[in-house]
Amino acid sequence: MSDAEGNVASKDTEEVIMEATFRAISRHGYADLRMRDIGDEMEMTRQVIHYHFDGKYDLLSSFLEYIIDQYEGSVDVDEDADPKTELAVRIDQCLFGPEFDEFSHWDRMKVFHELYSHAQNDDQHREIFNSHYERMRDSIVAVVEKGMEDGVFRTVDAEQMGQLLTDVIHAARGRKISLGHDDAPEDARDAIDDFILDSLYVSDDRY
Amino acid sequence: MSDAEGNVASKDTEEVIMEATFRAISRHGYADLRMRDIGDEMEMTRQVIHYHFDGKYDLLSSFLEYIIDQYEGSVDVDEDADPKTELAVRIDQCLFGPEFDEFSHWDRMKVFHELYSHAQNDDQHREIFNSHYERMRDSIVAVVEKGMEDGVFRTVDAEQMGQLLTDVIHAARGRKISLGHDDAPEDARDAIDDFILDSLYVSDDRY
Repeated sequence: MSDAEGNVASKDTEEVIMEATFRAISRHGYADLRMRDIGDEMEMTRQVIHYHFDGKYDLLSSFLEYIIDQYEGSVDVDEDADPKTELAVRIDQCLFGPEFDEFSHWDRMKVFHELYSHAQNDDQHREIFNSHYERMRDSIVAVVEKGMEDGVFRTVDAEQMGQLLTDVIHAARGRKISLGHDDAPEDARDAIDDFILDSLYVSDDRY
Repeated sequence: MSDAEGNVASKDTEEVIMEATFRAISRHGYADLRMRDIGDEMEMTRQVIHYHFDGKYDLLSSFLEYIIDQYEGSVDVDEDADPKTELAVRIDQCLFGPEFDEFSHWDRMKVFHELYSHAQNDDQHREIFNSHYERMRDSIVAVVEKGMEDGVFRTVDAEQMGQLLTDVIHAARGRKISLGHDDAPEDARDAIDDFILDSLYVSDDRY
């Protein structure tokens, strides 16, 4: 499962640069970030940054992909899980994110949400976000379709359900970050259960 | 219903400055905006800006409140409307916004969504957004409660329902702006009908 040795070394260096970028952004903000600020956060010579990245914009795009990979890569679902359980795990993972030793998931996501609003003026970042949201939505759509096949979910428009859940997740995360509503993800989780998933479950003790 | 004459004149001047600010932001972006760019978009002397506003930050905060007022002020609900109709009108108005002669509602909202993501670092803007979201959510909560009293809605947690609808509306609007998903508001409207409001309506032909 591991890359060839050269790739591992190169991958390690890029990770060192990405984590240094994260520390530099936390300290200086990303709008005023200079390449030298990132160099200051690394033990390696600053030249490796220029070897790996073609300027600040290229580095920032890679950084966006890096934090998205960390966010997405954390989803670990048991292949034998039933659709209800799998859907719950995926929703939780998207809402609450993984845990890290250095800086929290939410510190990382502050940059993510700031770049999201700038994507209206940035085609490359817009494409990165669109791919990310497609993967997030598609992973939910897939389990909704599986549940429909298994007869545990009602027949619904799976794409529409996947998009709605993705929207609620994104809004709750944005509210926590932009407006300081720390309970937003937990509250959204309850609302999803009470008002959305009840449209999906075939057996619901309310009826 | 109209202010005293002096207030009207002052209000008109502020509106002229606000519309000039909008044109200047459309041309230069808001990050690099200078007071003189706004002056260039006005027929009045630039001095009136300094008379009315205490610097760029103060002006930008007022501008944020101005576009929020336009957004909120457009909601016009018949007092005798039944709760189902009133809820539908409010959701539509929040999702699609009012129409303007000069620049579309969505041009105006680009600035809104950009400032929203920056509110994580700006207490004053965060407060303006929080007040706006509270009013938006409360107006939905009020009609949900009215419908419960009238017996046309099921008994639900009205706050939770109001927050969920507000989140879906915000996410769909953000997706249209940041990711270019022009159908997002219409799609969200359908998803709200199919998956959320069905939890609210007492008589639903599905059951």
